[in-house]
Amino acid sequence: MKIDYKVPTKPERRMCLVVIDMQECFFEEEGSKEKNKKAIDNIAKAIRSFREHSRDVFIIRYMGDTHSEKEDKSIIKEIGDISGLQIVDKYHMSAFQNTDLTDLVINNGYDTVLLCGAYAEHCVMASYWSAYERDISPFLLEDAVIAYTPEKLSSAFKICGTFTMDEMEENLRTTTIEPGCNSTNNRMRRKYWYLK
Amino acid sequence: MKIDYKVPTKPERRMCLVVIDMQECFFEEEGSKEKNKKAIDNIAKAIRSFREHSRDVFIIRYMGDTHSEKEDKSIIKEIGDISGLQIVDKYHMSAFQNTDLTDLVINNGYDTVLLCGAYAEHCVMASYWSAYERDISPFLLEDAVIAYTPEKLSSAFKICGTFTMDEMEENLRTTTIEPGCNSTNNRMRRKYWYLK
Amino acid sequence: MKIDYKVPTKPERRMCLVVIDMQECFFEEEGSKEKNKKAIDNIAKAIRSFREHSRDVFIIRYMGDTHSEKEDKSIIKEIGDISGLQIVDKYHMSAFQNTDLTDLVINNGYDTVLLCGAYAEHCVMASYWSAYERDISPFLLEDAVIAYTPEKLSSAFKICGTFTMDEMEENLRTTTIEPGCNSTNNRMRRKYWYLK
Amino acid sequence: MKIDYKVPTKPERRMCLVVIDMQECFFEEEGSKEKNKKAIDNIAKAIRSFREHSRDVFIIRYMGDTHSEKEDKSIIKEIGDISGLQIVDKYHMSAFQNTDLTDLVINNGYDTVLLCGAYAEHCVMASYWSAYERDISPFLLEDAVIAYTPEKLSSAFKICGTFTMDEMEENLRTTTIEPGCNSTNNRMRRKYWYLK
Repeated sequence: MKIDYKVPTKPERRMCLVVIDMQECFFEEEGSKEKNKKAIDNIAKAIRSFREHSRDVFIIRYMGDTHSEKEDKSIIKEIGDISGLQIVDKYHMSAFQNTDLTDLVINNGYDTVLLCGAYAEHCVMASYWSAYERDISPFLLEDAVIAYTPEKLSSAFKICGTFTMDEMEENLRTTTIEPGCNSTNNRMRRKYWYLK
Repeated sequence: MKIDYKVPTKPERRMCLVVIDMQECFFEEEGSKEKNKKAIDNIAKAIRSFREHSRDVFIIRYMGDTHSEKEDKSIIKEIGDISGLQIVDKYHMSAFQNTDLTDLVINNGYDTVLLCGAYAEHCVMASYWSAYERDISPFLLEDAVIAYTPEKLSSAFKICGTFTMDEMEENLRTTTIEPGCNSTNNRMRRKYWYLK
Repeated sequence: MKIDYKVPTKPERRMCLVVIDMQECFFEEEGSKEKNKKAIDNIAKAIRSFREHSRDVFIIRYMGDTHSEKEDKSIIKEIGDISGLQIVDKYHMSAFQNTDLTDLVINNGYDTVLLCGAYAEHCVMASYWSAYERDISPFLLEDAVIAYTPEKLSSAFKICGTFTMDEMEENLRTTTIEPGCNSTNNRMRRKYWYLK
Repeated sequence: MKIDYKVPTKPERRMCLVVIDMQECFFEEEGSKEKNKKAIDNIAKAIRSFREHSRDVFIIRYMGDTHSEKEDKSIIKEIGDISGLQIVDKYHMSAFQNTDLTDLVINNGYDTVLLCGAYAEHCVMASYWSAYERDISPFLLEDAVIAYTPEKLSSAFKICGTFTMDEMEENLRTTTIEPGCNSTNNRMRRKYWYLK
């Protein structure tokens, strides 16, 4: 059959924020924080905006072996206050593989994730495509993703669906989340929609 | 919240038949077919009934290494004509692990599987619990499951939800499957139920 | 091929403890804690033993909707001190579905889980079979699992592999865990075993 | 820890070919086959080369709803003879999601997939990242992937690991596959490497 279902517009998306791998061990190279200052500032700004609108923010940490000499797995302080936010630890590239992120997203009433963080061509892309397998729609937040080269960064944006910072702010103003909409009860009612 | 969603009754279940590991290599022991004649006959009968009602039957074959000396992985002829039925090969205990059974079930309009075959305490139980992880409801078909001991068989029936042969026949008479109800289009419409 | 690989003996198992759904909401029925006092005491004892041997204990909490009137999802205090233990929240029956339990087990050096808790015929069995799909070997801890009826409890033990409390203690004395044995580095070295 | 494991070089990769969604319904636009003639010819050439070296080729077909008016889901004849090749049907973007491709790859002795076909920015990328979640290494075959725009195609190649046609031919000449190396027996022996 030809696809004829409707999808939410950008302002309608029931969307939370997922911040990927903003850890000291991934900024070991001299000057790497300065070079990515604009993206880091935008990530900090996005976290603040989501919190102000009582939308969930999930902080992802990679805990496996890395190519880095630096052992420090802590979140860089430059993204601002993350106290009280849910931390999700992972041992693979995707933020969804063997983590509880799928249910954190679904059970808090979302069906869409807005991804930001590092690195575009590794864990961000892996998480982006992995979201689809969990029936969650992913978008990248423009100007808030970090890559090893500008060319890889622009390639990621050409391939993936994106939100600008302005579109993000519009979504936060427009859409209200119903936290219980994906409760077990409600999911099962949708599964058995055909019962009278 | 307290669970308050409605589930289908047994006659309402949108149910297909899954026949597990009825292969020569699992009947190598002298007399094992005779000993399980009643179950084998009921499996043959269930296959015929499902086909008569144009309900899908999926034949599962384990293709990995076994404890058997017998290499023959073919389906035993005693379960009758399986020509034209979909064969699903697996390399693990569960019929759902790394196979396309989930989508064969869902995309043909079902949300429930009726399991029969061998062996209760291994691949049948593994498939039963694995179905839940795929959001598919499993039942065992009484008198159509084989175990290594009568005690293990009765234990399986005490733990799992079951259908009798009569309940199976009633379901086949009562419920009509809408093959397209779980198409991509329809699944997405249910996912985005909140769009106007 | 005929199976000819060696598996660890019970004392050799690299095993951690998984405590399932010991939450107030599942003990709402008058007298249900008294009725299950022996199992609850054994769970408390197993937790103490694992901690004394510096073996990991994972506490699983079901956070979805329940059949209970009682909303209290906290861990019952009768299983003793769980301060400092890792809590794993889930929204499905299996302790592994959409949680980080798989990687908590693997990345701390284990390949086997010893399951105890409630309820045998639901979340304990679901977790048992689900472990196999993650390539983790499951066992039930006898006298430390709770069911709705004695018949269902004995059925679970007839179907699943089990450890007695004594076998558990022997394992804790005999086997030493190498926490780094399943690090990314080591897993990849085993994956590419054929490289010179 | 710092990553210090060795990975296979391109000639050493135990690699099979995966041909994604080369179906009539995805070439409905007037002139789309002509426009992509070079890629289609290279896919046909890759299939022939893999077959000549007795390496497996898996043909993936998307069976769900599409944006196309054309209902024809058959494989385009321009990629040449595919008789005898394993067809894998899917209902999602990734060739691995709810299919048996993972076990077809692993159980035939491979740990790497070379991806070609359509469309780069949808099902090819989804399959690429999905392979990592199954512990299978993916590469794109240059000049044998189709995208909706040249910009998207070059973006895919900038982000993903690739093989040229020459590197592919070198791999086929250099590496010999041991079909049984990932049998249940051998996988379990590697899992329990620590047993004496």
